[in-house]
Amino acid sequence: MPELSIALAQVNTAVGDLAGNSKKILEYTDRAERCGADLVIFPELCLTGYPPEDLVLKPEFVRMSMVSIMNIAGEVGDIVAIIGYVEGDSDTYNSAAVVNRGKLVCSYRKRFLPNYGVFDEKRYFGSGERSLVMDIDGTKVGVTICEDIWFPGGPLDEQVSWGGAELVVNLSASPFDRRKYVYRKELVAARSIDGPVFIAYVNTVGGQDELVFDGGSCVHDPQRGFIAIAARFREELLICDVDFKYLRSRKMVEPRFRHVTERCECDDLQIQRLERPEREPEKRKREAVKERADELSDIEGTYEALTIGLGEYVSKNGFEKVVLGLSGGIDSALTAALAVEAMGRSNVICVFLPSKFTSELSSTVAEKLAENLGVRVIRIPIDNIFDSYFNSLMDEMQEESGIVFENIQARIRGNLLMALSNRFGWLVLATGNKSELSMGYCTLYGDMAGGFALIKDLLKTQVYELVEYMNERDGSELIPREIIEREPSAELSEGQRDVDTLPPYEELDPILEAYIEDGLSVADLVEEGFNAALVERIVTTVDANEYKRRQAPIGVKITSRAFGRDWRMPISTAPFRSR
Amino acid sequence: MPELSIALAQVNTAVGDLAGNSKKILEYTDRAERCGADLVIFPELCLTGYPPEDLVLKPEFVRMSMVSIMNIAGEVGDIVAIIGYVEGDSDTYNSAAVVNRGKLVCSYRKRFLPNYGVFDEKRYFGSGERSLVMDIDGTKVGVTICEDIWFPGGPLDEQVSWGGAELVVNLSASPFDRRKYVYRKELVAARSIDGPVFIAYVNTVGGQDELVFDGGSCVHDPQRGFIAIAARFREELLICDVDFKYLRSRKMVEPRFRHVTERCECDDLQIQRLERPEREPEKRKREAVKERADELSDIEGTYEALTIGLGEYVSKNGFEKVVLGLSGGIDSALTAALAVEAMGRSNVICVFLPSKFTSELSSTVAEKLAENLGVRVIRIPIDNIFDSYFNSLMDEMQEESGIVFENIQARIRGNLLMALSNRFGWLVLATGNKSELSMGYCTLYGDMAGGFALIKDLLKTQVYELVEYMNERDGSELIPREIIEREPSAELSEGQRDVDTLPPYEELDPILEAYIEDGLSVADLVEEGFNAALVERIVTTVDANEYKRRQAPIGVKITSRAFGRDWRMPISTAPFRSR
Repeated sequence: MPELSIALAQVNTAVGDLAGNSKKILEYTDRAERCGADLVIFPELCLTGYPPEDLVLKPEFVRMSMVSIMNIAGEVGDIVAIIGYVEGDSDTYNSAAVVNRGKLVCSYRKRFLPNYGVFDEKRYFGSGERSLVMDIDGTKVGVTICEDIWFPGGPLDEQVSWGGAELVVNLSASPFDRRKYVYRKELVAARSIDGPVFIAYVNTVGGQDELVFDGGSCVHDPQRGFIAIAARFREELLICDVDFKYLRSRKMVEPRFRHVTERCECDDLQIQRLERPEREPEKRKREAVKERADELSDIEGTYEALTIGLGEYVSKNGFEKVVLGLSGGIDSALTAALAVEAMGRSNVICVFLPSKFTSELSSTVAEKLAENLGVRVIRIPIDNIFDSYFNSLMDEMQEESGIVFENIQARIRGNLLMALSNRFGWLVLATGNKSELSMGYCTLYGDMAGGFALIKDLLKTQVYELVEYMNERDGSELIPREIIEREPSAELSEGQRDVDTLPPYEELDPILEAYIEDGLSVADLVEEGFNAALVERIVTTVDANEYKRRQAPIGVKITSRAFGRDWRMPISTAPFRSR
Repeated sequence: MPELSIALAQVNTAVGDLAGNSKKILEYTDRAERCGADLVIFPELCLTGYPPEDLVLKPEFVRMSMVSIMNIAGEVGDIVAIIGYVEGDSDTYNSAAVVNRGKLVCSYRKRFLPNYGVFDEKRYFGSGERSLVMDIDGTKVGVTICEDIWFPGGPLDEQVSWGGAELVVNLSASPFDRRKYVYRKELVAARSIDGPVFIAYVNTVGGQDELVFDGGSCVHDPQRGFIAIAARFREELLICDVDFKYLRSRKMVEPRFRHVTERCECDDLQIQRLERPEREPEKRKREAVKERADELSDIEGTYEALTIGLGEYVSKNGFEKVVLGLSGGIDSALTAALAVEAMGRSNVICVFLPSKFTSELSSTVAEKLAENLGVRVIRIPIDNIFDSYFNSLMDEMQEESGIVFENIQARIRGNLLMALSNRFGWLVLATGNKSELSMGYCTLYGDMAGGFALIKDLLKTQVYELVEYMNERDGSELIPREIIEREPSAELSEGQRDVDTLPPYEELDPILEAYIEDGLSVADLVEEGFNAALVERIVTTVDANEYKRRQAPIGVKITSRAFGRDWRMPISTAPFRSR
């Protein structure tokens, strides 16, 4: 008989929806109990949803989080549930409630608060000052929250070395980026081996504004490695039976260090399960999941994040359908294909908005794409509207062409999409990519218009990769080859090509990635072997276009540094590089 | 002879412009030295500009801050200069360099890092762990940075109680809001009296994106009160001679508490001025300034912040002229009048964009306003463009009126203003107010279009107040009475009035202020005596319109909680109030 049966409740909860989240937490607790679990662990702040942002500054929100956790406690039976919630006291804390037999037994307060990247936790929370190790059916269990285990020497070390923890649970809400899953697994493994201690890591899933959470909850055995891994991106109750015997047979080593800490608040907490119901069979089918989770490549993860991020934004904001402009180019093609995957073809409306500069090819391939995807296409030519602008403006403009009339075309398209949105309640998807947004090669209120900019964190070269992936996945030319192979053009003037304005994407994108994601300076980039004049041109252009990005719609974070909460550059700034 | 002559260099430095800022710092140091000052104090992070935001995450930026402070040190002569800069070491710090006779003598690192409101300092900086008290010509001088003195019991207490400081200098970058100046003065006075210690408080001036810094630097004598106060909003070198004799004659009391602190790094630092040049006469004319600064009312402060905030944004981003749409309503009238004050009439272009719904009155009063302001007006009727949209869309719309075609009018106007911006390089000013933005009574890409939304943090009732103030100030009906007295209308449909959609502003605004600025909940508001149904309607509407605000241009922060860095609400959120 296993010593402890642990349930990892990898749930998707909605920011602010305390009632709905409470209900889901109780459902999963009940399910875990029915499966015979001794312990069920929920993600970080699952009661309030993550990240609750400035809702935490509302005293009423904190109070309702407290009331809700007490209500949940009142309904929990003979299982130990560990639930992330916002705790109000003299300060506000990002806490884990330990709940058992109708009572909130105690809380652990997160110690390490991330305040970098997309995180603002020091804006909202005080740091906990105590560790927590409890005794569940004779097993010593420590509790940590997310960042607490991201660096060596934190609460986990105290709990193991000092508190004798055999299992440390970690409640997380760790957002997806395309490289993070592998890193996160290495981290869990490293802490577990260093302990040595079992780690049960529970991550949340779902999407919240620009963030997607990718799950991948897991249990790591310090000797045998990962013994259970949950699905990625999807809700799951993962149950894992852990045998601590061999850990106990090891000679207990002396604590490797003594961290400055107060005595554990609940050091002598003992919890014993009275009943052990028969287990339901569902928990035994986890092996396959492990394989699947491990196999997700970068590009598959990106695909999942984009489709889930969109689906979540749409449903959480009460939309049913999305609308986007098809240009015949690759960005709108990818956006449309992803939207169909996320929401089904009947919920995606495409609009083709040709002008006199729109090529025959664009029209043909847009039609072909729509046919492949099986979506409805509305066709609204923009030349008449354009002419009316032209006539109204010519007196003032004193010239016929140039950026002015290019932007007007983009804005007419933006307006038409917004009109359809206003009329039918469809969410407008902006289709721009990160290369464009970086360089300001996009029109405010034009192609940037919309409620959600799905692929704004994909560089153009990544757009191509994802399109190839989707075609491969579909086993067909879902996105027609002509769209992939044609030369990129905004088609806002005669014979226009992206390369007339931008460096070729294969030269541009590596520099953008190194500058934006890796934070390299001009000097660093030149040292890396990039052409100095090209680097200077790109960096200057990126910096100068902050004002556009500040007004862009949100979109799914895919990289380690997206234009969103992650990127807080001043608009007004002198180019400090070139004194 | 005074014991110490202190110069407060209330300078405006630009974010990122290390070269320009260095030059200015040296100019002011030189001027202070020529005036005979022993000590010159600059604002917080004046070398890098404030707030430098994510520039601080660039290692090159930190390195250049270090190089620049060393270069400055090399040129400082026989005066002690205390200069705010970004210090890179094992961590990055918000520091004050003490510079004298060619050397960077030591640095003080800010201890209390604000991470609330508009501030993200824990994102960027480590906390200092030491105090600094130095001996300048026999006077013990402590150094603090901004937040360090905002709460009792901080470094100031240590420096006085333990280090024997007679003067504590404070380098600040404290952004304007309409209530903060008075609070800030009370705070400085409280710390000074509690010490007891002289405080020399130096605040920065100028504008940076949504923030305006309002100066008001001062010296407080614990017995006699404020002995010098600088101008508000404008650069100034304020010199103040301080006599510490009577402070010394007091029996030294035992330290009232001992704070956990390390030994002062530079406790034994002694700095003596070798030469004392003859003073220039300019420093004696400060008395008048004190009077003027004290007299600025809330509304005057608001006026200064708006004109300076705009002027700074325009100049720091390389614009010369601004353009805005005049509707004949009060918001655009105020925006135009403020722009003329900020930039001069020749740099403000107004555009009148009438439709069939535009009343004769709007046309007349817009014309009269433009005449009063002496600005150029371009007139572009929008009906032809509107008709072309109408014709292109009618097949899809299946209805003739409603929000769709109202928004299209607003967006045509936005497009026309942007076209003029693209053609002539004028910055478009959005003219919406905070009441509208709160309630979503505004059109994305329409009246919300622009690079700067000047009055976005003024409630409608505050718009009226400011208009009355400007007319009074001008001694004329600069903004015609008809504009003030007419009923507010967007004029997007026949006979439309704001009250058809919104509660009357005199009912709406107090609830908005209490909800947004004071953070009251629905229950709190009802308890305050507001109508429950009205409160529920307003709060629900505010929450639901976060997506619009997220795409709004920046504007000047006027209140304690503006829609900007100050307000980080999720877009996707369930209404947690109404379970």
